Amino acid sequence: MKTIRDESFSLIDKKKFEEFLLSAGIIYRYPGSSALTWRPYGLLILNPFSDFLRNLFPKFGYQEHIFSLLANVEDFYKLNQEIYKFDKGVFKFNEVALRPSGEIVIYPIFKDWIHTINDLPIKVFQIGLMFRKGRKSGIFRNNEANFFIEGHSAHSSRQEVDAQVLNNGIIIDQVLDFFGLPVIKSERPIWTNKPIAEKNFGYDAILPNGETALAASNYAQMQIFSKVFEIGFHDNHGNYDYTYQSAFGFSFRPFLFSLWILSDAHGLRLLPSIAPSKVVILEINPRRDQNISNLVNLARGKMDQFGIKYFYDCDSSLPINKRCAKWEMMGIPLRLEIGARELNSGKLTVKRRDNFGVTDFDLQDLQEVISNLLDEVEKNLRQKLTDNFLGSQVLATTSLEIIQALTSKKVVKLFICYSHDCINGLQKTVNRGELLGVSKIEQEEKCIFCNQSTHYEGWFARRI
Amino acid sequence: MKTIRDESFSLIDKKKFEEFLLSAGIIYRYPGSSALTWRPYGLLILNPFSDFLRNLFPKFGYQEHIFSLLANVEDFYKLNQEIYKFDKGVFKFNEVALRPSGEIVIYPIFKDWIHTINDLPIKVFQIGLMFRKGRKSGIFRNNEANFFIEGHSAHSSRQEVDAQVLNNGIIIDQVLDFFGLPVIKSERPIWTNKPIAEKNFGYDAILPNGETALAASNYAQMQIFSKVFEIGFHDNHGNYDYTYQSAFGFSFRPFLFSLWILSDAHGLRLLPSIAPSKVVILEINPRRDQNISNLVNLARGKMDQFGIKYFYDCDSSLPINKRCAKWEMMGIPLRLEIGARELNSGKLTVKRRDNFGVTDFDLQDLQEVISNLLDEVEKNLRQKLTDNFLGSQVLATTSLEIIQALTSKKVVKLFICYSHDCINGLQKTVNRGELLGVSKIEQEEKCIFCNQSTHYEGWFARRI
Repeated sequence: MKTIRDESFSLIDKKKFEEFLLSAGIIYRYPGSSALTWRPYGLLILNPFSDFLRNLFPKFGYQEHIFSLLANVEDFYKLNQEIYKFDKGVFKFNEVALRPSGEIVIYPIFKDWIHTINDLPIKVFQIGLMFRKGRKSGIFRNNEANFFIEGHSAHSSRQEVDAQVLNNGIIIDQVLDFFGLPVIKSERPIWTNKPIAEKNFGYDAILPNGETALAASNYAQMQIFSKVFEIGFHDNHGNYDYTYQSAFGFSFRPFLFSLWILSDAHGLRLLPSIAPSKVVILEINPRRDQNISNLVNLARGKMDQFGIKYFYDCDSSLPINKRCAKWEMMGIPLRLEIGARELNSGKLTVKRRDNFGVTDFDLQDLQEVISNLLDEVEKNLRQKLTDNFLGSQVLATTSLEIIQALTSKKVVKLFICYSHDCINGLQKTVNRGELLGVSKIEQEEKCIFCNQSTHYEGWFARRI
Repeated sequence: MKTIRDESFSLIDKKKFEEFLLSAGIIYRYPGSSALTWRPYGLLILNPFSDFLRNLFPKFGYQEHIFSLLANVEDFYKLNQEIYKFDKGVFKFNEVALRPSGEIVIYPIFKDWIHTINDLPIKVFQIGLMFRKGRKSGIFRNNEANFFIEGHSAHSSRQEVDAQVLNNGIIIDQVLDFFGLPVIKSERPIWTNKPIAEKNFGYDAILPNGETALAASNYAQMQIFSKVFEIGFHDNHGNYDYTYQSAFGFSFRPFLFSLWILSDAHGLRLLPSIAPSKVVILEINPRRDQNISNLVNLARGKMDQFGIKYFYDCDSSLPINKRCAKWEMMGIPLRLEIGARELNSGKLTVKRRDNFGVTDFDLQDLQEVISNLLDEVEKNLRQKLTDNFLGSQVLATTSLEIIQALTSKKVVKLFICYSHDCINGLQKTVNRGELLGVSKIEQEEKCIFCNQSTHYEGWFARRI
């Protein structure tokens, strides 16, 4: 068993991480239910994320819509019969169902909007909620109402969809990079009678407990949905055809995955790029010594002058160690404590949240010191995300090695034929975990199952 | 019957206005349902409105949350039994209900968060959806899922709530001013066994058809909800009490009300302050004459230079009159048509959407001319909103005059005692429309019903 890389990373378990999210004021649980409430500190991160999305999608021709949350049951039954069964996973009333996916409320409208080739392509995206009930509980997938961002496009040819799927992949890459989250990109094998797509690309993050979690999906739906919802067009020669479609999406989960991986025993650690405030200025013994307050005001003035966002903590109701612990829990990247020591030495002190490193500096150098440190914290934390990702994978060449790796909470990389026989055969032999998907490679390797030569790598993992 | 002011205003009926909203790309209807879809052009207005709210609320100490859309049925039954019956107006599943109001998903959490006086005040706001079914259909209140913005606060005394209600009123004023919407502010008489508030202030807009529509509500809930949801606190002397609360809210409807009032036979007319693009530059016979294209590019360069947002229309697939009609429908405040005439005369021509006034100007004066015209359009359209408001009201001194005024599609202003006898008596006598509410005035007047002296004015109207 060859270890690709194996560095130590976060050891925070899921329960502890959920406590951090509650303590830091990111989320709250609606009593007696699994539904999430997003709190102000969480929204100070997610609202700029939404702005980022609203800026990113139009660059790729996607325009924002808010589609109905209530779907007609007829459309729901259509979807349920022809494509996939939601079974008991959907909230249904007599006349309406809460949308379990975007297709059901978007594609009946596409049918209205599309008549000829001149109406194509259409590209829409939405930021909204999807509802599924009866799923496993837990911070990442319990939540019956999940925020979901999804893009849908309709085109006049297969080739256009192929190109669009590549572009959708670029969007997904940029979204995941917003939170610094590395992922395994693979193609899901589709061997079913009622496929939801002709090609399905999955983006899986690796969590600190060694499980993988779907961070994004990218589908070449082609004509599967357009035939069911009867979305068709006439081309310039009078021929009629169904539209060719792509769809892709992700939830707010990548944000939580990244936060979890970056957590340490003291709480969250925010990437400076997403932290609502980059720095906390903490006045020791607030309002006791005018000279200290003056020094604090000088530091705050510099922050304002250089546009560095900060929290100012002059809370005299808590002891200093509790105040520090609070900001560490919340993951603010840098902390300036200003008190008698700083006044006497004439130097300010800044402490990094990521590694608790301390730097003394002169007030006049504030901008340069803080900017450089923020860059360093950003790099270091992004490196931690990469280290966790690489260190969580091992290469296996036998099914025994797969079992050993899964037992030691690793994700397994392997080489395998892209065939039903080999993939299903391996799945049965290993009898735990799951083959996430496969990806084409340049070099020739031996299939772990049939030992024939192959040009595909694959990943085996325990999924969340 | 004395007319306060009676100027002509928009004569667009509701059905026509709804067609405009569809044609301009503001909304779309999910087929076979009353649920709205918000389209890109609508969201280009509503997203900046949300940003405005996210900037405004924190100035008054309100912090943003996203509360669950799914409410526990237990909390729902609690609300239903103790305060008001939603009856069949709520989407219920076995275990959960779609929230019909914010209280049901917010106050169980307040109970968790509030223990002592030090936890108070708490002020939260959310931008989200509320669900009611079986209500009257139509563009303004059919929509089973309505976007709603609401603030909730909990305090330790009645006095604090009184002050908060005044501040909430200031927030409401600023929100309605965003869309230039004038309203009747009045206190709703509360004579019921199970009041939802001790005081309830309504903000009613007057629509072009003479009906009034609730634009915002402001409640002094005091302890009515805190007793039901058992939200209590210990003060510094160890005494226990229930919290004193305020709540207020409004939907996206004020935006639609304002749009309707400003519509004319050609379509929408957007206030420049909310228009996603202030100007459309329309190239006549696009790409036929390089000199014209050069002139267009010069104008576009000036627009970019001065940061004036514009659409550039170089669509050669439609005749010029259809292209103009499209931008008029969408309500873009100013239109520059650039063609042979402009090239030959050396002057540019700008046409106002509000009154179709035309101004010729030199390219070098572009910034000044456009800025001044945008100011004038803004003023003129806001004046139209005020004119509609004032011109829709008449003063009545007898119940016959009330009936005549309602028949001629007016809102009636009157003087009345703030008493159950006079208000209910008048309602029975008139036997149509509704008394919206009353408001205290300085001068002494005669009550329309009992003829005694009173210091209250009131409004009688047909509500939407």
